[in-house]
Amino acid sequence: MIMLKLIASNHIKKDQLEKFTVLAKELIMKSRAEEGNLSYSINVSLDDPCLFTFVEVWRDQKAFDIHNRTPHFTDIFPQIQAMSDKATPPTFYTELDA
Amino acid sequence: MIMLKLIASNHIKKDQLEKFTVLAKELIMKSRAEEGNLSYSINVSLDDPCLFTFVEVWRDQKAFDIHNRTPHFTDIFPQIQAMSDKATPPTFYTELDA
Repeated sequence: MIMLKLIASNHIKKDQLEKFTVLAKELIMKSRAEEGNLSYSINVSLDDPCLFTFVEVWRDQKAFDIHNRTPHFTDIFPQIQAMSDKATPPTFYTELDA
Repeated sequence: MIMLKLIASNHIKKDQLEKFTVLAKELIMKSRAEEGNLSYSINVSLDDPCLFTFVEVWRDQKAFDIHNRTPHFTDIFPQIQAMSDKATPPTFYTELDA
């Protein structure tokens, strides 16, 4: 099954956690509603409550490109980057078929 | 929803890729069949065909502990570690509810 999986992490400044959580939830809901999204999760580390890892699955590259041009992404992503004291750029994957 | 998500990566030695893929597929199938597993994927990087990231979702810590004692895990995991020239230990997460 051809699909595109993205894993990226942001380490959020402690004083920005509350604001980040509000934006993150909006990004999750609006991204999951996109036609080409297969799954979208933002995951908080159990060892570090400021570390968040995005695991996103898109139907294909085109769906991901569309996502990158959506109002919610173009509005929220820069804010999240500004709230981060460390951002691990995305690694792109495809899933091993079993 | 309380659940446990694990993300870990292994960089497999080039000459072990074929053997790894066989073991990986067995581990995927048997792990997904476990009662406490919610999802289990092994993902190959589009930029580096030797880089594999495991994204596992378990119902709770107990389900994960049971997994760690299964014959398929105790048999396959050491082999995968031996095939790796780099292993990034797991980070444990829970999912942000939206």
